[in-house]
Parts: sequence; structure tokens; C-alpha cells
Amino acid sequence: MRGLRLHSLPMSIEGTDARVDYSRVFTQAIDRLHAEGRYRVFIDILRNKGMFPNARCFAGHNGPKPITVWCSNDYLAMGQHPKVIAAMEEALHDVGAGSGGTRNIGGNTHYHVDLEGELADLHGKEAALLFTSGYVSNEATLATLAKILPGCVIFSDELNHASMIAGIRNSGCEKQVFRHNDLAHLEELLAAADPAVPKLIAFESVYSMEGDVAPIAAICDLADKYNALTYLDEVHAVGMYGARGGGISERDHVAHRLTVIEGTLGKAFGVMGGYIAADRMIVDVIRSYAPGFIFTTSLSPVLVAGVLASVRHLKQSSVEREGQQAAAAKLKAMMRDANLPVMLGETHIVPVMVGDPVKAKKISDILLAEYGVYVQPINYPTVPRGTERLRFTPGPAHDEAMMAELVSALVEIWERLELKMAA
Amino acid sequence: MRGLRLHSLPMSIEGTDARVDYSRVFTQAIDRLHAEGRYRVFIDILRNKGMFPNARCFAGHNGPKPITVWCSNDYLAMGQHPKVIAAMEEALHDVGAGSGGTRNIGGNTHYHVDLEGELADLHGKEAALLFTSGYVSNEATLATLAKILPGCVIFSDELNHASMIAGIRNSGCEKQVFRHNDLAHLEELLAAADPAVPKLIAFESVYSMEGDVAPIAAICDLADKYNALTYLDEVHAVGMYGARGGGISERDHVAHRLTVIEGTLGKAFGVMGGYIAADRMIVDVIRSYAPGFIFTTSLSPVLVAGVLASVRHLKQSSVEREGQQAAAAKLKAMMRDANLPVMLGETHIVPVMVGDPVKAKKISDILLAEYGVYVQPINYPTVPRGTERLRFTPGPAHDEAMMAELVSALVEIWERLELKMAA
Repeated sequence: MRGLRLHSLPMSIEGTDARVDYSRVFTQAIDRLHAEGRYRVFIDILRNKGMFPNARCFAGHNGPKPITVWCSNDYLAMGQHPKVIAAMEEALHDVGAGSGGTRNIGGNTHYHVDLEGELADLHGKEAALLFTSGYVSNEATLATLAKILPGCVIFSDELNHASMIAGIRNSGCEKQVFRHNDLAHLEELLAAADPAVPKLIAFESVYSMEGDVAPIAAICDLADKYNALTYLDEVHAVGMYGARGGGISERDHVAHRLTVIEGTLGKAFGVMGGYIAADRMIVDVIRSYAPGFIFTTSLSPVLVAGVLASVRHLKQSSVEREGQQAAAAKLKAMMRDANLPVMLGETHIVPVMVGDPVKAKKISDILLAEYGVYVQPINYPTVPRGTERLRFTPGPAHDEAMMAELVSALVEIWERLELKMAA
Repeated sequence: MRGLRLHSLPMSIEGTDARVDYSRVFTQAIDRLHAEGRYRVFIDILRNKGMFPNARCFAGHNGPKPITVWCSNDYLAMGQHPKVIAAMEEALHDVGAGSGGTRNIGGNTHYHVDLEGELADLHGKEAALLFTSGYVSNEATLATLAKILPGCVIFSDELNHASMIAGIRNSGCEKQVFRHNDLAHLEELLAAADPAVPKLIAFESVYSMEGDVAPIAAICDLADKYNALTYLDEVHAVGMYGARGGGISERDHVAHRLTVIEGTLGKAFGVMGGYIAADRMIVDVIRSYAPGFIFTTSLSPVLVAGVLASVRHLKQSSVEREGQQAAAAKLKAMMRDANLPVMLGETHIVPVMVGDPVKAKKISDILLAEYGVYVQPINYPTVPRGTERLRFTPGPAHDEAMMAELVSALVEIWERLELKMAA
């Protein structure tokens, strides 16, 4: 569904002049965003290391005033963890800033090799492979898998992330979209497909804008029944679920049943980059054939060293995970008690529904300018039109006083703008 | 051309069993690489900061012995420059490891804003936009530009990088491939196209595997004549050419004539990431519509801080550029005098033709194991089959003694393997 939305750029060159007016086409593209109230203004901030979620905001938004960040994906504040900072500093002084090349040509450091081993172990897989981002890991892996498997059909959850949709589309394979987390619909589509063609079920564990969770075991049952491979995006779960941070697949004891598990190093692990974990043979295929892996400078060893420290720490420490879960439960309860339209999923993500892009932006602007609360409006194309929302990501560093301030600010704004409270 | 090569994965599922044997398909894909002698083994190294091109190589290749790196794209050794290291360390302690979000949602730091201003200035453009890699900047920008411009035809040099080919292919637009740096062929194709459709000429300044340079001004003349936009990839030129490191387009005083200039932060600038520079409106369009920009965690502020220091330094210092040019000229002369089949382009890249993937790998293996010289074989799909080569990238830190050792090692190996000397 999101893939289709991304395609909808119905600009046309009006008139019949032989000479193309490029400037007009570009201007029209931007004007459309303004007209729909979804032109994006990036808020210019600097975080204060060691004091997250406190940060500084630069002039033009609320002046250079302190703010509280409520929309970071540095879910466990590992981006400021002393072990992570120390590891990055050591690597910086040991080997320097960048890797200097692709993994094949000069850019394969011992840090990369170590981290791939650590991530394979995290998911109980034979091997892992690093990418420059989670986006690239999804795009490159899905596109390559589907190209390697002739005639492959990919069964894709309708709320899959844009990067998965990009990979599926770029593979050129047939795509069957199943309704979100709908096992009956997925089985219907699997049963209708030719048994002789390769099949791949692509889905996420935690859906980042809804905060709900996929029925992984049941999807694996269907995959077994119809001889399909499975591809699970755990970017909003790794580090945060499971005894060692292996994600929902670890929590549910189903990691061994999945063909490919994909994760990010830029959210709960606090740094940057993406990866897959799978059987050695599949990792070798992606490593050897995926242009998005082969033809790009590898992750800076400084980042890789930081991630190594982060992953190793979160394999052994559950304090951060427990703190995050407690904060999310607390904030959801406070919002529900205040009759705010909070979506009550089981995860750490706390979305509050607004349903209008202009209002979502307006609330966000007031929060920043008047309350020093930083939360972005989530508008199309990130979510479907009409489901615009605010999305809060409380973590172990958000305390109850911050939550009380946030909830009372929201209630005041909801009243001021005459927005709909929860039923 | 490279795009077609990437597509050639003619695996088929043999037999008529109804049940797909996934394992066999994957195994066949890997077996093909072994059979063709182009299965890639990543050399596991750690660079010694401050002593580049010296590095350490881990066991299994030549044992944990010191090596000299001859194939890094950290062309000017900026990855170990004290200003770069200091800036990264400061950012690490000021704001932490990762950005924590996409540019729109929590991941827009003041470092990002500053660096985009610095890069726009470097190329004399109104604006610039950061991406997580050069690969992503090419893929996302070309795909989005062509989608925004209905009916767009892209004219693409046959040796364009895989990331440009990916962007063009993923846009779904019509592609016309012109012979490498062939103005007559490009004009022939432009003249034959419908004058009423949008056109974009996509090319590189320095071609990284050949080391030759595009006739940028003449291509801009054709663009003017046929009302086409231009897209120039300067990844192997930024930092290294022009009085301030603005690339070949600065050296040739044609930057203002190009619609989009694309560059990398992971080669001469020594860190990681990619960018485009262009008019404000075009940058705003890409920023607003490109999935590969929108839906990904932004560059770590630590990396951005390092790049800021690197770009600023190379705007004012020419010592590194002059050292690199002198080293490249020296090495080419020494190789020519030794009758090695070196390709004598005008740039800093020094390719030595082998013409066979197995022999290229063999030479590389001997150099590493016996001489402590690290240079990767460049095989298909990075270059066309039959043009396999070694590619040396001398820089300001490679001294004449290193060059003399390298050349005498190559001469010995050439004789041992009975390879062809230069005519």
C-alpha cells in the first residue's frame, strides 16, 4: 500500500510547447505538498550527550531553547551509553574515520567481521551481513533474493516499510499484498499460487507507526505448509525484545524458523547501519550478488565499533528494556486516563491519532514553540492519508515528570484546537 | 552496460518437482562464481591510524603481518587527518553516537544543516542534500528525478556506476546508453529523441576503473542545444580536483552549467556518506519525494562533523591534492618504464590490465602473501569480463620506496606467471 502511495506523483507537463519547462514541473511538485499541508520542515536540533532526551533546538523554531525529545528512535538511549562512546573513541584513534572502500576493496575491517559474528549469534543464525542502513538491507536483500529465485512471488504485508516495498518493486517479481497481520488472507493468497514457484513472505515484527506485532509463529506455519521462505524485518524490535535483545522472534522462540531476519543498528542499538542474519549460503548469495551491498563504501569502523559495544551490552543487560517497557506502559495509561486518543498496542510505541495533516503539524508546532516538547507529525506518505498522528517513543530516560508535562500540554492543545478526545 | 551484467542471473530450477528446492538454487548461484574464478574473499584488515597506508592483516591471508594498502579510496588519507579525528571526537562527546531518526523525525542535527551549506558552497549551488552513501544518493536522486518528470528519457554513459544504473532502472523511465565519453553518439541519440519529452544526461567526471575524464563542457553544450538536464557523478573527483576540491567541474569552470552534481563523503573526504548539490527547488523535490532519503536514519552526527572538518580543510589546502598527483605520476612512470601494462590516464587512478579473473586474483594473492602488498583484483561485475585488472590508488602518503618495492614485486610476478608485458 505504501509503495503505491509513493508512486502517486501525477504531475503532468501542461500545454503543448515543444520545449519542456523543467522549473514548472518541479515547482508544481512542491506546491502540491504545501497545498496538502504535508510539506516537511526539518527541526534543527542538537542532542546533549548524557542528558538525552534533553536537547537544544536552533533558532527559527522555538529559539535556541532546551527541548525534550519525544520522537527519537534511539529507543534505549544507547547512543549516549558510556560503553558505546568509549568503543567509538578507541576505534577512531586506532584506525581512523572511514573504511576507505567497499567491503571487497579495502573496506573490510576486523570490526566488520566481529560484528557480523555477534549479530549472527544474536539471532541464532550461521551468518550475518552488514549494510550501510536498514533501508539498504531491506531493498538490496529482497530485490536480490527475488531475482535469484526465478518466478518468485513475494507475499507482502500491506503495512510493510517503504524500503521493503522498494526492494520488492525493484526485483521486478510478482507481488501479492495481504491485509495487515491477516493470516486468513495470507493463506488464501498462498493457496491460490502455483505450488511450483518460489515464494517469500515478507513482513515486520513490530510495525513502527501502529505499534502492533505480527503473529510470527503462525506465519511460519503457513510458510511451512506452502513451502515459502520468510523474511522478517525486526528493526523496531532488535535490542528491545527477547532475553538478549534478539527481537520478537527471540521473545517468541521462533528465530530458527525464519529464513532471513533483518535489523537496524540505528534505533535501539543507537548508532547507524543495517544487517541481515540467515544461513551461510543465503548470506553468501546476497554478499555476492546484491549491488546495494557490493558497490558501496562499507560502514565506518568507528560506527561498527560502537555497535559491537551496544549489541554486546544489550545481550547481557535487561535494565534498558525493562525501563522502556515501564515508561511506555506508564505513558499509555496516563494518556488513556486523560482521554487522549492513544492507540493501545502491546509495544513501546505510543501513537496518538489526529487524522488530519494540517492539525497534526499544528499540534507539533505548538508543542515545540510553547512547551519545548519535540514530536514530529507523522503524515502521508509515512502513514495512509486520514490516519495522520503523533508518535511518541518513551524510553528508559523519560521520567514521570516529563510525562506529566507532556500529557497536560496535549490536553490543553486538544481543548484549544477543539480536537476529538477518546470515546 | 554494467546494469545488464548485474541482471544476468540465469539460474533456473531444474526438474519438474512441484516442490521448490531453494537450497539448490542458492548453491548453484555460488557455484557459478567459483567456476568463473570470481568468488570474492574479503581481506580482513585494520588500518593503523596515522600510519596509512600501513595496516595490519589478520590471520588466514598472510598471517597477522604488516601490509601496505594500495587500493584504498581514502585517496588523500583524510580518514586519519588530525582535524577530522578531533572533530569526530568532539561530536561524539557532545551529541553521542547516532542521530536517532530520519532527517524529518528527530534525526536532523545542526551538523547536517551546516554540512549541506558547506557542500552547496563547494559547488557554487544554492543547496545540497546528504544521503547515507554515494550509492543511495545516485539511486534515490536519479529514480526520483525521472519519476517526477513524466516521459523522461535518461541518456547514460555506458560505463556509469552500478548505483546510477540502479536509479535509472528503478525509475522505470526510458534509458538510452551512449558509448563511453562519445559526444557524437550522445548527440545522435539526443537528436533522435522527441523534443517534447524531458531529458537527462547522466555521467561521471572521473571513471573510477579507467581513470579517464568526461568532456563535461561539451556535454553541457549538447544539453543546452537539446534542452536536457545534466547529472554529474563526481565521487572520484571531489576533494581532489579544482582549487577548493570541487571536482573536475570546478577545475574546468563548468559547475554552474550542471543541473545536479553528486559526490561522496567516503573517498577523498575520508569518512562516509553521499550528497547532491543543485538549485534549491530540485533539492527540495528530492528531499520531499525520494524514499531512499525520507525513510532512513540520517548520517551519524559524528560522521557529519568529521566530513565538515575534512571539506573545510580541503577547500583551503592543496598540499594533499598536489601530493596525490605527484605520487600517481611517479607510479605511472615507474610502471611504464618497467613495461608493465599500466593504463596511462590523466587522473590519480593507476589501473594495470590483466584481462583474466583467475590471474588477477592470483597476482593479488601473491602480492599479499609474499610481499605484504594489498591490492584487490577488479573482476566482473565491477568491470566487463576480459578487462579484469589491478587498480592502484597512490596517494600523498605513498612514498617512492613503497613504489619501488611494488614495481619490482609486480615485475617478478609478471615473469613468474608468464604474463604479457606492455608492447
